[in-house]
Amino acid sequence: MNISFKKLVVVLMLTFVSMSLSACATTEHSGKTAPIILKEQGSFAAGGSVVTNPGTFNPVKMTPEGQTFHGDHAYVFYQIPEQARRLPLVFWHGFGQFSKTWETTPDGREGYQNIFLRRGYGVYVLDQPRRGNAGRSTQSVTINPVPDEQKWFNIFRVGIWPEYFDGVQFPRDQESLNQYFRQMTPDTGTIDINLNSDAVAALFEKIGQGILVTHSNSGGMGWQTAIKSSNIRAVVSYEPGSNFVFPEGEVPAPKASSGGTLGAIGIPLSDFMKLTKIPIVIYYGDNIPEKPIENPGQDQWRIRLEMARQWANTVNSHGGDAEVVHLPEIGIHGNTHFPFSDLNNIEIADLMSDWLVEKGLN
Amino acid sequence: MNISFKKLVVVLMLTFVSMSLSACATTEHSGKTAPIILKEQGSFAAGGSVVTNPGTFNPVKMTPEGQTFHGDHAYVFYQIPEQARRLPLVFWHGFGQFSKTWETTPDGREGYQNIFLRRGYGVYVLDQPRRGNAGRSTQSVTINPVPDEQKWFNIFRVGIWPEYFDGVQFPRDQESLNQYFRQMTPDTGTIDINLNSDAVAALFEKIGQGILVTHSNSGGMGWQTAIKSSNIRAVVSYEPGSNFVFPEGEVPAPKASSGGTLGAIGIPLSDFMKLTKIPIVIYYGDNIPEKPIENPGQDQWRIRLEMARQWANTVNSHGGDAEVVHLPEIGIHGNTHFPFSDLNNIEIADLMSDWLVEKGLN
Repeated sequence: MNISFKKLVVVLMLTFVSMSLSACATTEHSGKTAPIILKEQGSFAAGGSVVTNPGTFNPVKMTPEGQTFHGDHAYVFYQIPEQARRLPLVFWHGFGQFSKTWETTPDGREGYQNIFLRRGYGVYVLDQPRRGNAGRSTQSVTINPVPDEQKWFNIFRVGIWPEYFDGVQFPRDQESLNQYFRQMTPDTGTIDINLNSDAVAALFEKIGQGILVTHSNSGGMGWQTAIKSSNIRAVVSYEPGSNFVFPEGEVPAPKASSGGTLGAIGIPLSDFMKLTKIPIVIYYGDNIPEKPIENPGQDQWRIRLEMARQWANTVNSHGGDAEVVHLPEIGIHGNTHFPFSDLNNIEIADLMSDWLVEKGLN
Repeated sequence: MNISFKKLVVVLMLTFVSMSLSACATTEHSGKTAPIILKEQGSFAAGGSVVTNPGTFNPVKMTPEGQTFHGDHAYVFYQIPEQARRLPLVFWHGFGQFSKTWETTPDGREGYQNIFLRRGYGVYVLDQPRRGNAGRSTQSVTINPVPDEQKWFNIFRVGIWPEYFDGVQFPRDQESLNQYFRQMTPDTGTIDINLNSDAVAALFEKIGQGILVTHSNSGGMGWQTAIKSSNIRAVVSYEPGSNFVFPEGEVPAPKASSGGTLGAIGIPLSDFMKLTKIPIVIYYGDNIPEKPIENPGQDQWRIRLEMARQWANTVNSHGGDAEVVHLPEIGIHGNTHFPFSDLNNIEIADLMSDWLVEKGLN
């Protein structure tokens, strides 16, 4: 009887330990209903500059003389789960977008912010200088509300307005489209590659080592940031769209498409070599043509995928570890320019998780 | 022996239950080191309008003809803790500010977002239309980076630049001031009371009943929103700064200060009466003069506090439940225009918690 009670004690203890763990722990691939358990969360500004106006501040008149203006910083909201993995993920939005890119999807599902928190990663979602919550810009700007959403519907490869692509991984209800269009926000100053990569490098200076995840327009700025900050231990880039950097002397000729021309940037070999020291993976979605077509929304991605492949080959020819994954080629179809928020974003996140494991970054 | 083992089983079970609870539960007044446990979190746009350009969209030219523009929505990031209290808190920033107001304080402590999550409240932090992450505005705008930070230092009653007020509840290191100035972001269109209150009413339409927490410039817009949405069950207002609404015929004369004149808005009595159906509390901080003084940064708050008292009296004379708490009068000293992020913000949050309990809103 004593022994059976001892066994009972052990069984009950294990049961409660198990219950505690299942109630609390953030486990790989856990469902939406499990809680998210945070060790901490918060926000701060990183980088930026200060303009100091000549003169002496007059506290009665309060005119601009002698006053300062802090601007051009990045803003970041971070969340660190309990028992976080060693390296956090820093998420950088694309053109016309902000940190929302990584939050709730247009149809209300969880985005990468939640998905990777649940998988135990610290998650930083940033707004680049002069965008979203980092709107305080040292430049004057005029912003005009030019109707442009059908253009983005096409360039983001949801379809050819008003038609959706067959099998596209995008919800077809009106409210999802409403949310999708409202996740854009304007620039409050010029997009400055050097200024932006400085701010994000300052962010990494503050947080230490991590993994940079870029999208579209931030892809090119991401390479520059990884050159500036040795705290970036890997880069995951979704559909990088511009500003590919090559060693001077190896810069490819501009590529033409019906959606415009894409050039590349030459940088010193010593800088480029820094990109050969970290693992890099690039993903592109579906409905990118193999040969030139009339529709500029799609055709501009043909030359970007081509440039990305050429870029990865150049990185690897210098001893690096860069890989381009064109999702349809591995049997994943229908992805738009936003694979991480598409209907199959769990599958897309699994690919990234597996890559992080493969590179020993988890 | 059997009985002692039974006791042991019970003791161990209770121990593990207790351990589970202490590890998981968000308890009132729990410390920073306890985890934050979320049932869910996410973001969405609320309200707004759509501009539709005449003509037919041409997918090759992609010019503005036939395209749409979604703008003027609010953006909100929400977090719901496990075992949340019945009514969530919806936090609305003030002039020149955005959702950051409620996040990490300038010196890196927890703001109201974390404090009230830990106290079991669902927390929504919003950016009003044409501000921060809700920057997509249907208006054209020109933004100039006019140096203005010493002015705000004074108006926000941190001190009289470059001096801090004696005993002010504000950190005095350089980095805190850097973060403080960078938590401003410009408007990307006119501040439109009607448009903004519509968007926040749409937010409450989506989330159901809750408590609205306003600051400064959103104070006045908050009254308008509470008139529009019966889902607002209470209002907590920190230092409301403008747009006090009175019944037509009871509008007080404008009040003069060295920092400008403050008028009030007349509205139909039937609308005003809606504000008498919910509990309302208003808090003002320290260093507000009792009599006119030369410093406009301080003096403009004298007439606002006076107007708020007059407003609360009017609400109460019509059968309502509005209270103005001038913090120094209850022995709490040194608070700036941002009591919720000041050095004593836990004490300030305790006041709000106690008020919510007193009104049966917890």
